Amino acid sequence: MPVASTPETPTLLERRRATLGSHSPLFYNTPLEIVSGKGVWLRSAEGKRYLDAYNNVPHVGHAHPAVANAVSQQMRKVALNTRYLNDRVVNYAEALLATLHPTLNRVSFGNSGSEANELAIRLARFKSRNTGLIMSDYSYHGTTLTLAQATTGLTTSEAMGENVRTIRIPDSTGLDNAATERLLASSLAEVDSVITSLQNAGFGVAAVLFDPLFSTEGLAKVPAGYVEGLVKRVREAGGLYIADEVQSGFGRVGRLMWGHELFDAVPDIVTMGKPMGNGHPLGATVMNAELLEAFGAENMFFNTFAGNPVSSAAGHAVLQVMTDEQLMPRAAANGALLRRELSGAVAGVAGVGEVRGDGLFAGMRFTDPETGEADPATAKRVVESMYRDGVLISRIGRNDEVLKIRPPLAFEAGDVEVLVTKLSRIIAAL
Amino acid sequence: MPVASTPETPTLLERRRATLGSHSPLFYNTPLEIVSGKGVWLRSAEGKRYLDAYNNVPHVGHAHPAVANAVSQQMRKVALNTRYLNDRVVNYAEALLATLHPTLNRVSFGNSGSEANELAIRLARFKSRNTGLIMSDYSYHGTTLTLAQATTGLTTSEAMGENVRTIRIPDSTGLDNAATERLLASSLAEVDSVITSLQNAGFGVAAVLFDPLFSTEGLAKVPAGYVEGLVKRVREAGGLYIADEVQSGFGRVGRLMWGHELFDAVPDIVTMGKPMGNGHPLGATVMNAELLEAFGAENMFFNTFAGNPVSSAAGHAVLQVMTDEQLMPRAAANGALLRRELSGAVAGVAGVGEVRGDGLFAGMRFTDPETGEADPATAKRVVESMYRDGVLISRIGRNDEVLKIRPPLAFEAGDVEVLVTKLSRIIAAL
Repeated sequence: MPVASTPETPTLLERRRATLGSHSPLFYNTPLEIVSGKGVWLRSAEGKRYLDAYNNVPHVGHAHPAVANAVSQQMRKVALNTRYLNDRVVNYAEALLATLHPTLNRVSFGNSGSEANELAIRLARFKSRNTGLIMSDYSYHGTTLTLAQATTGLTTSEAMGENVRTIRIPDSTGLDNAATERLLASSLAEVDSVITSLQNAGFGVAAVLFDPLFSTEGLAKVPAGYVEGLVKRVREAGGLYIADEVQSGFGRVGRLMWGHELFDAVPDIVTMGKPMGNGHPLGATVMNAELLEAFGAENMFFNTFAGNPVSSAAGHAVLQVMTDEQLMPRAAANGALLRRELSGAVAGVAGVGEVRGDGLFAGMRFTDPETGEADPATAKRVVESMYRDGVLISRIGRNDEVLKIRPPLAFEAGDVEVLVTKLSRIIAAL
Repeated sequence: MPVASTPETPTLLERRRATLGSHSPLFYNTPLEIVSGKGVWLRSAEGKRYLDAYNNVPHVGHAHPAVANAVSQQMRKVALNTRYLNDRVVNYAEALLATLHPTLNRVSFGNSGSEANELAIRLARFKSRNTGLIMSDYSYHGTTLTLAQATTGLTTSEAMGENVRTIRIPDSTGLDNAATERLLASSLAEVDSVITSLQNAGFGVAAVLFDPLFSTEGLAKVPAGYVEGLVKRVREAGGLYIADEVQSGFGRVGRLMWGHELFDAVPDIVTMGKPMGNGHPLGATVMNAELLEAFGAENMFFNTFAGNPVSSAAGHAVLQVMTDEQLMPRAAANGALLRRELSGAVAGVAGVGEVRGDGLFAGMRFTDPETGEADPATAKRVVESMYRDGVLISRIGRNDEVLKIRPPLAFEAGDVEVLVTKLSRIIAAL
C-alpha cells in the first residue's frame, strides 16, 4: 500500500504514474507492492505474506534457485545471439521438442507469447496462402497490431480485422446430454458459416487460433468432439490449427504436458510463452520441419534475443525442475484436490456454479440467484476479500464473473487447504 | 567449427538443423561456436580468441559482472509482472526517461525491438487516425507480420502492405555541395509524392519510422536538413515521427545518447531494443504523456514479461555501467580514433570508399574500381578474412557491400589498433 504523499516525496504509485502512465494496469482496489517471493508465497512492502494462487509465470515457484542459478551462471559466460553456434539453445530445443508429438519437431524461439503468435500467423498465412483468421469471440493472444485486430476479450482501439471472424466457444457446463448435442451441432454450424464468410470475402482460411483450456472464456467446457470438428473444418478449408499454450501448457493440466493433448487433434503450430522461463522473457513457436523449411527458404527470419544461451538456460532449467520436483503429478493430484474441495465448499450455495477447469486451474462462476445473470460484482468482492485475507486470485470470463485460480505448479496440498478454508468462509459470508 | 559427424554422434550443427531448422541464420562460411566472452573478447569452442567488433547487444561488454549481478540478485528476490507495484521498474523508468528530451516523458516496456515498434505503430495509428506508413526502401525493424509487410532490407514472403510507401534515404557521401543540394531537393520531393500517394489512396499518414543512423542502408550520410524536412512534411500530413534507436541509441554516437539528437527534430515516439539489457530481452517505447494517456484510455494494454523487476534490473545496470565506466566519452574518443585510423589505412586504395558512420560505428563501401558498381564479393572476402584473423565484423548496405564495424561500447584504443592493423593488411592484400 503506498505511503501517503507529500509535495516533497511522491509515493511509488505517483512516481509510477509519472513514468508508466496512469493506465498501466494494477491489480486490486489498493495496489499491492511486492518485494520478494519464495515458492508460492509473496511478501509485500508492509511485510505481509500472500499465498499466490494466481500467477502462472513463476511456474516452478517464485525465485526458484535452480532457475536463478542457471541464468546467473550463463550470464557470467556469454549471452550471444543464435547466429553463432552454442550448445545451450540446441540442448534446450531437444528437451522441449521431446515433450511434443513427433510431428511437432522444429522450434523457433521468441521473447514472448505475442512474438510466438505473430510468427504462427505468418507461418499459417505462408502455408495456406490465405489470410483469414478464426478466433474465439472472447479471447486475447497478444499485444501487437495484428493480434489487437483479432482481440475480443479486452478493449483495444483497433477495429476487428476485416479478415477476422469470431466464433462462440460452446460451454456445456451444467447442460444435459441432449442440450450438449444441440450445442455441439449449432457451434459447428457456426464454424461452417464463418469459413464460408471468409471464403466468400476472398480471404480464405489461414488459421484458427485458440487456447485449448479456453481460459479467458472462463474455462469453457467444450462438448466432446467440438475441437476435433472445428479443426477438421479449418483444415478442409486449407487453414492451420494453432494452439496457444501460454496458459494451458507446461503441465498445467497435470496429467498432460500440453492443453492440446486434451483433444484428438494434433496442432499444426503450438505457441508458448508465460510459464516457459519462470519469468525470464521467453516464448516459442513449434511446428513441423516441412513448414519451417518452406518458410525459411522464402524468409530471412531471425530474432535477436531469442534462443540466446541465457534464455535457453532459463527455459531448460524450468523443464529440469518440473522433472526433479515431479510438478506434473503434483499438479494433477493437487489440482484434483483443489477442485474437489472447492466443489464441496460451494455445493448448494445459491449463485455459485459448478467448479470448472482442469489440472491446477480452477474456476467458479457467479450468477444472480434470481435472474441467473452473470454476477461480476460478487466475483470481484470475493477476489478483493481473498486479497485482504492474504490469498491472490483473479477473475476471467465473458463478464469477469468467473474466479480464476491458477497458482504456480509448486502449489502444495497444504496451500489448497489454506485457499479453500478462506474462500469457503468468504463465500459463506456473502 | 563442428567436429566431423558419425552416424552415432551428430555434430552440434546437425543437431541444430534438426531442431531450429536449416534456415536459422549463422554467420560465416564456417559457423563459429562461442562458449564464453569477457569485455570485447569472445572465446570459441576450439579455444581461439575473437575480438568482437560487431555485436551491439553486449553493449557494456560481454558477461559484464555488474549486469550479471543485478539480474542474479533480483532473480533471487522476485520477478513478478507490473500489475503489482515494484520500485525496480519505476527507478529504471525514471533513469531512462532522464536521458531523453522532456517531451519524451512516458515509457512502455517490452521484450524486444519488434514489440517496441509494434506498439509505436499502434500508437501512431491511434493518434493520427491514419494507417499509412513511410519506410526507408532498405530497412528492417522487426519480425512481426506488420513489420514484415514493411520490411525492405531483407527477404520476407509477405507482400509490402498496401498502406506502406517507401522512400530512398539520400546518401551524400562523396558528393559536392551542389550535388548534395540537388539530392536534398529530389529526396524531399519524393517524400511529398509518397505522402500524396498515401492520402489519395485514403490511408493518410500515420508515421514515418526510421533508424537515425540509417545503419541497414549502409550508414547513409543524409544531407543537412533532410530529416527535418521529412519530419515536417509527415507532421503536416498528421503523421508521427518514430525514431528506432535499436542500433543508434544508448550512446552509440558517443557525444550523444540518442541517434535522433543528430537532427533538429524531436521524435514523437522512440523505440529501443538490442543494447538495452546487454543481452537480456528488453525493449521500450517512449512517448509523451498525452499520447500514452489517450491510448491507455481506449486500450487495455499490458505486456506480461515487460518491466518485470529482473528485466528492469538488467536495463538499469546497463545505464549505471555506462556512467561508471564513462562509456559515452570513450565511444566518442575511440570511435573518432577508429574512423581516423581506418581512413588513413584505406586512403587511396582503389575500390574502397570513404569511411562513414558516427561515434563507435564505422563502415566502408566497396566498389568495382572499373565500373563503380557495388562490390559485395570483396566486402564478403574481407569479413571472412577478418574472421580467420580473429576479428568479428559484418556487412550492411543495399548490396551488402559496406563493412559493418559496430563493437560493444567497451571497445578500447588498443582494440582499435588490433582491428585497423589486421584490416589494413587484408585490404592491402586484396
